[in-house]
Amino acid sequence: MTHPIFRHPHDARLNAQIGFIVEIDKAKAVLRQNKVSDGSRRENDAEHSWHLCMMALLLAEYANEPIDVGKVIRMLLVHDLVEIDAGDTFAYDIDRQADKAERERAAADRIFGLLPEDQGKALRSLWEEFEARESPEARFAAAMDRLQPMMLNFASRGDAWLRHGVSAEKVRARNEHIKEGSLTLWEYARGLIDEAVRTGYLPDED
Amino acid sequence: MTHPIFRHPHDARLNAQIGFIVEIDKAKAVLRQNKVSDGSRRENDAEHSWHLCMMALLLAEYANEPIDVGKVIRMLLVHDLVEIDAGDTFAYDIDRQADKAERERAAADRIFGLLPEDQGKALRSLWEEFEARESPEARFAAAMDRLQPMMLNFASRGDAWLRHGVSAEKVRARNEHIKEGSLTLWEYARGLIDEAVRTGYLPDED
Repeated sequence: MTHPIFRHPHDARLNAQIGFIVEIDKAKAVLRQNKVSDGSRRENDAEHSWHLCMMALLLAEYANEPIDVGKVIRMLLVHDLVEIDAGDTFAYDIDRQADKAERERAAADRIFGLLPEDQGKALRSLWEEFEARESPEARFAAAMDRLQPMMLNFASRGDAWLRHGVSAEKVRARNEHIKEGSLTLWEYARGLIDEAVRTGYLPDED
Repeated sequence: MTHPIFRHPHDARLNAQIGFIVEIDKAKAVLRQNKVSDGSRRENDAEHSWHLCMMALLLAEYANEPIDVGKVIRMLLVHDLVEIDAGDTFAYDIDRQADKAERERAAADRIFGLLPEDQGKALRSLWEEFEARESPEARFAAAMDRLQPMMLNFASRGDAWLRHGVSAEKVRARNEHIKEGSLTLWEYARGLIDEAVRTGYLPDED
């Protein structure tokens, strides 16, 4: 059980920030469908977000357009915070995708609302920009968010794909927007999907 | 077991980057002494690093000196990668602290050596700057790295402190350099330590 965190005796702004920092510790308990690379357990949102930031730092040179990598990283740090309330929605779960936007909006209201107003607005704006996928930074961040689970699924011998009976056709359709962020990385991803089919990690069609 | 990741047929630079990205997935299995805030399990290096980045983003206004927050975040993303080989060394374990520097240097050689030379050098330089604690960014990053486990120890009812029989005196001495990064956050941390003593999470003296 989490014990209420120590509060500063009179600094309300710092206390709001501290409260938020303890609250988002819960992202470490939001489990994703994909496993970590050795297949031993499911990955959580906090470690996933760290991994995406590292990827952005290293792969920025493959972005189709000039990007502010610092902004991509800030976006990736916050992009899954709403899942603390809304949960992880599996990419191929059509039913739960339907009300995802509404669940996540309510989550954003509560979670970013814990912060001092200026910072809550700034973080929410990063999350909304990520979701809209209309800026070069958001397109590249989204490419990281799609490429990483494919790499982990491959490394863990197709675990999440086989468990959910997802086809290569669906994986290609779902992840094709990687190419909006990076043509080079989409070419790599297509090669990875083809190899996964050859190895038997991914059925070619439904 | 991790299956070897798919390699691009002819892009050696991309393959080095992809190999590194899969290798650092192991940071998710490096367990720290402190637990996550609800006390349910030990925290790993990947989620710890994400949490520190979020803290830096939100608490930058309390830095004693002007800082480049983007640089602080890049430093925090990579600061614990050497522990993939060298392991987490508990802050109060005097014996293992002795050869820590040597173990971590060897780890840095191998891990950053997986990357293309320019990127390996850049990341290693961020790590060395963090370790040296001589720049404003490194001082602030180190403050995050010390404050976060104190917050999690408090939230998890003193778990790691009580388990290791650490005293408030030792916690103060060990974490005092938070003040080099931020006097405001050191004042908060001192309040937290005092409250932990009052609550019985931390014995006052050895």
